[in-house]
Amino acid sequence: MVKINENYLKLPGSYLFSEVARRIGAYTEAHPEAKIIKLSIGDVTRPLVPEVVRAMHGAVDEMGTVEGFRGYGPEQGYEFLREAIARGDYAARGVDIKPEEIFVSDGAKSDCGNIGDIFGVDNVVAVCDPVYPVYVDTNAMAGRAGEYQEELGKWNRLIYMPCVESNGFSPEPPKEKADIIYLCSPNNPTGAVISREKLKAWVDYANANGSVILYDSAYEAFITSEDVPRTIFEIDGARTCAIEFRSFSKTAGFTGNRCAYTVVPIELRRGGVTLNSMWNRRQTTKFNGVPYVVQRGAAAIYTEEGRRQVMENIGYYRENARVIREGLSSAGLTCFGGVDAPYIWLKVPDGVGSWDFFDQVLAQANVATTPGAGFGPSGEGYIRLTAFGEAGATRTAVERVRNMFQ
Amino acid sequence: MVKINENYLKLPGSYLFSEVARRIGAYTEAHPEAKIIKLSIGDVTRPLVPEVVRAMHGAVDEMGTVEGFRGYGPEQGYEFLREAIARGDYAARGVDIKPEEIFVSDGAKSDCGNIGDIFGVDNVVAVCDPVYPVYVDTNAMAGRAGEYQEELGKWNRLIYMPCVESNGFSPEPPKEKADIIYLCSPNNPTGAVISREKLKAWVDYANANGSVILYDSAYEAFITSEDVPRTIFEIDGARTCAIEFRSFSKTAGFTGNRCAYTVVPIELRRGGVTLNSMWNRRQTTKFNGVPYVVQRGAAAIYTEEGRRQVMENIGYYRENARVIREGLSSAGLTCFGGVDAPYIWLKVPDGVGSWDFFDQVLAQANVATTPGAGFGPSGEGYIRLTAFGEAGATRTAVERVRNMFQ
Repeated sequence: MVKINENYLKLPGSYLFSEVARRIGAYTEAHPEAKIIKLSIGDVTRPLVPEVVRAMHGAVDEMGTVEGFRGYGPEQGYEFLREAIARGDYAARGVDIKPEEIFVSDGAKSDCGNIGDIFGVDNVVAVCDPVYPVYVDTNAMAGRAGEYQEELGKWNRLIYMPCVESNGFSPEPPKEKADIIYLCSPNNPTGAVISREKLKAWVDYANANGSVILYDSAYEAFITSEDVPRTIFEIDGARTCAIEFRSFSKTAGFTGNRCAYTVVPIELRRGGVTLNSMWNRRQTTKFNGVPYVVQRGAAAIYTEEGRRQVMENIGYYRENARVIREGLSSAGLTCFGGVDAPYIWLKVPDGVGSWDFFDQVLAQANVATTPGAGFGPSGEGYIRLTAFGEAGATRTAVERVRNMFQ
Repeated sequence: MVKINENYLKLPGSYLFSEVARRIGAYTEAHPEAKIIKLSIGDVTRPLVPEVVRAMHGAVDEMGTVEGFRGYGPEQGYEFLREAIARGDYAARGVDIKPEEIFVSDGAKSDCGNIGDIFGVDNVVAVCDPVYPVYVDTNAMAGRAGEYQEELGKWNRLIYMPCVESNGFSPEPPKEKADIIYLCSPNNPTGAVISREKLKAWVDYANANGSVILYDSAYEAFITSEDVPRTIFEIDGARTCAIEFRSFSKTAGFTGNRCAYTVVPIELRRGGVTLNSMWNRRQTTKFNGVPYVVQRGAAAIYTEEGRRQVMENIGYYRENARVIREGLSSAGLTCFGGVDAPYIWLKVPDGVGSWDFFDQVLAQANVATTPGAGFGPSGEGYIRLTAFGEAGATRTAVERVRNMFQ
């Protein structure tokens, strides 16, 4: 008789975004006339930029001819893209990353989940609280999280690092020894960033303990503050302790186009082997590369014109973030994030739970948000707002929420 | 200190296709004038058909407009594609598969590897010998294969089911109880198919033992014999014991376009849960769907014109298979497969090892093949030839090999 992976049975049933969708659905059914504006889900709305569209058309044409057709590509990604990434995202910032350290993939979500394959089950994992649920769920599925404690909203084998107002929503190295540490900067959901100094402390901690930092940098394109590191590899010592995840999803609107990459430096060794060779083995065995057409699209954002067009879209979302942050702050609400990130972490007025506040904003302002409690216990008392909406709708949504407090 | 997944260290170093590539490279370096024809790697060479190209251009245009842009799609695939698959690949053959039983993915290789996530480590796994290496390697990585026995070329916890001339290269249910059984029909590498009668015996075995059959049907489009099942779900009882993997790679030349799907019937339950819900949880947590543009391309092959164009390409490869099979047979060689499959399984002349024969054919005919021994111990004495080459080159290659025996 087949034995299933029993760890799956431990996963709590309802996923944050499905519960959000259920509540919005229920409200809409009861109030069909309501025009809900969604500042809830982190999906982009701007179309692919013309340079990406042009490159993809070109690649589709190639694929339709005998001479231009490409079958299986390298599982790790085409050289043209890996080289463009190394040059455009690293060398341009004075960071030396070689193409063979870059693994192109179908998404940072896939990579953040699949990276667990190369680690043993008996590692101690540390995550931020609040946290992007994929880090937690994939470790639970692999048996690294232990048991779920319903009453605490936590797994008993994970280390939770509170990211709260008093530490600027930036996690501190824990007293316990963590083997695998997930960091996300700019952060989903809080919109906070990890400063250079703090990141250096993390790198030192990891090197001292033989830990590995899994550094999710999917929102890097939103950083504006000069002193915030764009990549963990700006930090001395990171090459012996860090793996970095990057994505074209938010940078270039690729959420429906699926392309990302993971950087595993050659110097990163554990248990006598390089993690680069382990990830290479994982990817070549269980993955077959990203569509050629999509890789051509991704490469187009590294041209001068492509970069300019993509930054225009980022600017559009940044302006939304400013509108939300300043609009709500001036109504007397307390907002965090939204400067170097597309997320605004709004403090719920005293004494209201984040799911209750979610319901209030939905009912009174017809604006959908995401309750902070859904991201972990320390998210209670906050809601997350995203800057990925249409500009006009975002302004309207902010006005409506302001009116709740005037 | 991070603990790596130690199972990776047990994997034997050199992968079949890299060793083949190495030997071809070494020969080419020594004989730069040689014009090597590759009948070795199973990659297609015909371009994407016009209907697919047209649909992809249309989707790229949509993605470039505000109105047409699509962000995150459903992780399981768009309804338009899941419905087209249910209708075109199943209902059209009288098989009832619902869209919610279909999970669109980036490749059958990914799915065949990732499916292991939903099963416990302590299952007994049965594989064919010879076998597509991904089934074995992914189970070894997960800790289900035990230890690799170099001298036998086998893992000590796997059940190997010999597929040899005496059983028509069709595996028999083992005497031991296997929990997870990988079947591949039409088969890679032997080109054999599993008959309806034999497949029924497998389904009965699986239902009697609570086993799950992982049925890889990536080469289904090549079946011509009327009595060979196109899908395991043609067999009574399969809905309670089988998962089917299908791919657009060989059907529609999508090896560089990346699209496949996996069917998990609702009735398939183990350990008190449906495997459909487990796979859904796995995919929604660790995967984010296939590019919209690619899904539009895949859907185009279900139009009347798309189907006609795709079958024309399949016909082209089938003709190559015939040329290889008949050409080599008439030179006195013994060939199997190549009727319902793009692979020809050539019996090596007596007393020659398959790697030695590989070297002989490379040196004397300048034709690259794949040694059967690379697919498992029972592949010794055979080489695999593929029908995916250019027609003229394939004819030339066959002539050259024939000349070795005249």
